[in-house]
Amino acid sequence: MSLSSGTQLGEAVLDRVTELASCSESPEHLTRRYLTPAYKDAAAKVKAWMEEAGMSAEIDAAGNVVGRYEGEQPGARALLIGSHIDTVRDAGWYDGNLGVIAAIECVGVLSRQGRRLPFAIEVFAFGNEEGSRFPTTLTGSRSVAGTFDPACLDAVDDEGVSVRDALVAFGGNPARAGDIGRSPEDVHAYVELHIEQGPVLEDRGLAVGTVTAINGASRFELRLSGMAGHAGTVPMALRRDALVGAALMISAIEEIGRGGDSVVATVGMIEALPGSINVVPGDVTFSLDVRAPDDGHRLAAVAAIKSRCRDIADQRGLELEIEQKHEASHSICSPWIMDQFDAAVARHDIKPFRLPSGAGHDAMSFSELCPIGMLFMRCGGGISHNPEENVTTEDTDVATRIFLDFIERFEPQD
Amino acid sequence: MSLSSGTQLGEAVLDRVTELASCSESPEHLTRRYLTPAYKDAAAKVKAWMEEAGMSAEIDAAGNVVGRYEGEQPGARALLIGSHIDTVRDAGWYDGNLGVIAAIECVGVLSRQGRRLPFAIEVFAFGNEEGSRFPTTLTGSRSVAGTFDPACLDAVDDEGVSVRDALVAFGGNPARAGDIGRSPEDVHAYVELHIEQGPVLEDRGLAVGTVTAINGASRFELRLSGMAGHAGTVPMALRRDALVGAALMISAIEEIGRGGDSVVATVGMIEALPGSINVVPGDVTFSLDVRAPDDGHRLAAVAAIKSRCRDIADQRGLELEIEQKHEASHSICSPWIMDQFDAAVARHDIKPFRLPSGAGHDAMSFSELCPIGMLFMRCGGGISHNPEENVTTEDTDVATRIFLDFIERFEPQD
Repeated sequence: MSLSSGTQLGEAVLDRVTELASCSESPEHLTRRYLTPAYKDAAAKVKAWMEEAGMSAEIDAAGNVVGRYEGEQPGARALLIGSHIDTVRDAGWYDGNLGVIAAIECVGVLSRQGRRLPFAIEVFAFGNEEGSRFPTTLTGSRSVAGTFDPACLDAVDDEGVSVRDALVAFGGNPARAGDIGRSPEDVHAYVELHIEQGPVLEDRGLAVGTVTAINGASRFELRLSGMAGHAGTVPMALRRDALVGAALMISAIEEIGRGGDSVVATVGMIEALPGSINVVPGDVTFSLDVRAPDDGHRLAAVAAIKSRCRDIADQRGLELEIEQKHEASHSICSPWIMDQFDAAVARHDIKPFRLPSGAGHDAMSFSELCPIGMLFMRCGGGISHNPEENVTTEDTDVATRIFLDFIERFEPQD
Repeated sequence: MSLSSGTQLGEAVLDRVTELASCSESPEHLTRRYLTPAYKDAAAKVKAWMEEAGMSAEIDAAGNVVGRYEGEQPGARALLIGSHIDTVRDAGWYDGNLGVIAAIECVGVLSRQGRRLPFAIEVFAFGNEEGSRFPTTLTGSRSVAGTFDPACLDAVDDEGVSVRDALVAFGGNPARAGDIGRSPEDVHAYVELHIEQGPVLEDRGLAVGTVTAINGASRFELRLSGMAGHAGTVPMALRRDALVGAALMISAIEEIGRGGDSVVATVGMIEALPGSINVVPGDVTFSLDVRAPDDGHRLAAVAAIKSRCRDIADQRGLELEIEQKHEASHSICSPWIMDQFDAAVARHDIKPFRLPSGAGHDAMSFSELCPIGMLFMRCGGGISHNPEENVTTEDTDVATRIFLDFIERFEPQD
């Protein structure tokens, strides 16, 4: 394969993305949950591609596919690259899978050129990034990163099958899943290519962008109680309308989100009771999801939102309960990795651009083990977790070239 | 019975309200829908009470119970009084029933005193004011008022039984239900005693109030479309969040309602889709109910709300559809009847107070036939359509006395 002719690298990646999409639990759409037969088929295919690309490959105790391409010296410290091959239900084809296949293609180029680098490369196809089968996520990448929590083996799917039993049936080894974590001295860094899953790069007219951090997240449920009443008989001045209170809070949440530094604040779910056209709502419950690449900015936004919501509740004679449902810290990408991604982007005549990741990624699992970095690729309309997820061949080509360029010129900082 | 001793009249009314509440489709709570066996039991009981109170009584073609107490001259023009004996599901005991029983008690007092008035009195216990069995309302009172729509006979209940068939099974006569309307020359007026079903009298510390008008009502469904997106990956500035748009509209609706003259504006139902904690809502549907005692004020509020909602949609890049679901004009109470109610209230050392009715009532059916008027009685917490509906014996006593006083001194204006 010549790297100078058209978009062959992008075409090669997308051909394999298409082929891998056939490994699905359903013939109509792509659903490939962790440790299902469809996942096993995909893992076998990926393992064969890794071997074809000159790697030694295996499926590990946690069900990840792992390929190793030795460096100039066998047993050298490794640059870890990869993404996940499990999917949500009714998924797009590119989320995770594109990053895995692009990583294999990059090694394939080196291998076909007979090139060895001063470091080894390990390519990973992780399982259970999505948490679409079991109520636990990042199982595969946490196992490799050495932050595996054995309690996750007890999580069960809709049919009552535990991760432990599913892993045994798959051919993995739950007893060893906590023992395969890499040591800091064996790895230089973990880097990942992934579709953005958002609209920022498209809005900026850029094919790729360098990720600064993976957002931390806080989630809450807010419950408001006022007084239900007849929509005809209770004058406006005598109402304690929980939905009007919630409306004021939702407006305030958006305003605080807009005012924060890269903060996003979302009310995605709302329920008003009793829920009749002719009854003033007495009870409203709504969700709140706040994320930011910087934990300080996120926590400041959360504090401001709580304070404003409590003020609104007080002014309106409403009772407000705020229950936290989730809290996750940010994962910061290493500045020197960002710089090397930016340099590779610039060498391809694209303006370097940095953006945070709003969604979670396997890279989060590695932030305690080693430096991490991510390269985002533009996706159509910012759509993801949806069969309408789409990318262009040109973007796939240039993103893969940039990723390869980054690998070829990678300079460890330790 | 002596009218001067304690609260005997109120006690008598409430004893019968309690007795009538035993006529229910369920032993645990009061549900007495139109033309059910429970309704038939209640109608028979009411008919017997009418006869005991000195009236000739019958159950008419539409299933109403009708009692007539002749005036000084047989066949005299009549004052019509009454309310309904059908209920919502899981109802309170007082809605409708209290007005029927109080009317019978008033006639009973006259009858026991051997008094005849210059006009006849007809007492009605109407069926299907609530519309809780069939998707049609005011069937009984419209029949008597001469505004019966035969199309309502085709309405069917949850089991597929039509009003027509239910009326035949009950012993009514659907073919005649449109023929029993009174003529204007046979009636002086229609007046009704009813619990307020709202909090205004309680808030004012008043046992009763004179109704000025029964609110007209407009109902709409508003459908907003924006763009769904990932709660982590779509920056605030790139969102078209349908729920934030709806929140701004709900706040504006309340503000316009508060600014209107006796206008009430309510958003009782809301649904945000796709409805996940981590997805920006792309579609929101909500209901709007606007009422006012004056149609001009109501329609002005509706126009202001539509305009503000369209502005908000435009500013936010949202698509907005507004679909009207219901439109009903106000029913204005006759000033001379209001004056006579006020005078009776004042004679009982209560400050006359006027208020509109936010809820619909049988009196609406008569507004084209004759002058109408209503007296509202305080109910605890403004609660209605609920088993917690409650009244005091003292309020029931004074309201019934005032209603009787009004009848005794009633001076027709035609």
